[in-house]
Amino acid sequence: MDQQYTSALLGRAVDEFAKLPGIGRKTAMRLVLHTLRMEEDAVDGFCSAISRLRHEVRYCKVCHNISDSEVCALCASPHRDKSLICVVENVQDVMAIEATMQYRGLYHVLGGVISPMDGVGPGELQIQSLVDRVEQTDVKEVILALSSTMEGDTTNFFISKRLSKVLADEKRGLKLSVLARGLSINDELQYTDEATLGRSLVNRVPFVA
Amino acid sequence: MDQQYTSALLGRAVDEFAKLPGIGRKTAMRLVLHTLRMEEDAVDGFCSAISRLRHEVRYCKVCHNISDSEVCALCASPHRDKSLICVVENVQDVMAIEATMQYRGLYHVLGGVISPMDGVGPGELQIQSLVDRVEQTDVKEVILALSSTMEGDTTNFFISKRLSKVLADEKRGLKLSVLARGLSINDELQYTDEATLGRSLVNRVPFVA
Repeated sequence: MDQQYTSALLGRAVDEFAKLPGIGRKTAMRLVLHTLRMEEDAVDGFCSAISRLRHEVRYCKVCHNISDSEVCALCASPHRDKSLICVVENVQDVMAIEATMQYRGLYHVLGGVISPMDGVGPGELQIQSLVDRVEQTDVKEVILALSSTMEGDTTNFFISKRLSKVLADEKRGLKLSVLARGLSINDELQYTDEATLGRSLVNRVPFVA
Repeated sequence: MDQQYTSALLGRAVDEFAKLPGIGRKTAMRLVLHTLRMEEDAVDGFCSAISRLRHEVRYCKVCHNISDSEVCALCASPHRDKSLICVVENVQDVMAIEATMQYRGLYHVLGGVISPMDGVGPGELQIQSLVDRVEQTDVKEVILALSSTMEGDTTNFFISKRLSKVLADEKRGLKLSVLARGLSINDELQYTDEATLGRSLVNRVPFVA
């Protein structure tokens, strides 16, 4: 009774919006009233985009990124460096790295990190397919770009173990690297946590003017 | 190019979410990825609720509130006091007043306030239907519950002029009232603006222990 809608249709639409993460009932109400002011065509376009995505979504059979076809646009592109694989947790991470404009290789989307607390073991992740991919293609470097957390580090360690046979093959010369840890750009030294600061000291690099 | 989606379906869904007010591209992406994790049925339920609302929405022919039928649940209710009409700007205001649990009368939703700057004149609002409603029914009090802004005050003044003939009829005894202006609950005096503080002094009420 504390939220009364004079219309069941309205109440249901608000309920649906409020189920989305980070959207409370007030925001849901604002969004619903916005859709009422939209053209009917625009609302249909909105609904069909969401519905089509959910029903027609596919994942690239090579890198497991979201894709419209069997192989995603990145894996299929002739402009990407196929000797590099960047291992990431999810689709957002692919976009975050693409946004840096600093990477021209391929990706491998794990679908998460190993987290026993959340019931996520190596079997739930695309680790076997990564190992297969490394063994079956002419990859020169695998870049581990997981979160700098306990779970990320555990997953990095697990992957390095699974790749140990290929890594030991000197003729193959596969490199395994990990994103640098250190000060964020614009960080002030006095406010940087000691673990990060310590790591940035240990991994210091030659100064380039 | 600064935001690259490997899937056109994904990009389109993000675009659609990002068109909603207060939702940027990052939030849109988060919402889209959430819909991908939802059951297909749940996504269908979401889409159909939004779509049905937009296509099937109706407005109460008496008070112009959102309604599922010709006359809304509030106007049709035998438990509401039909001698009171509370004039509000929009549907959210009806819900805000309902949430106070202090009002058992009916409403009249204007659909906005007079605002020449935004091109909203009296003709765009449900003012004529309010006058008709007051003249044709046995209403005892009209409560003006518009925003306490220049536009709200202008609209209050305009409505009072349009109702002047009925208000002058002593036998009819129609009252026209307006929401009290004064300190917000929990406001500290020193931080209250002088216009509000001045009005709260002029309109002071007997103290009740």
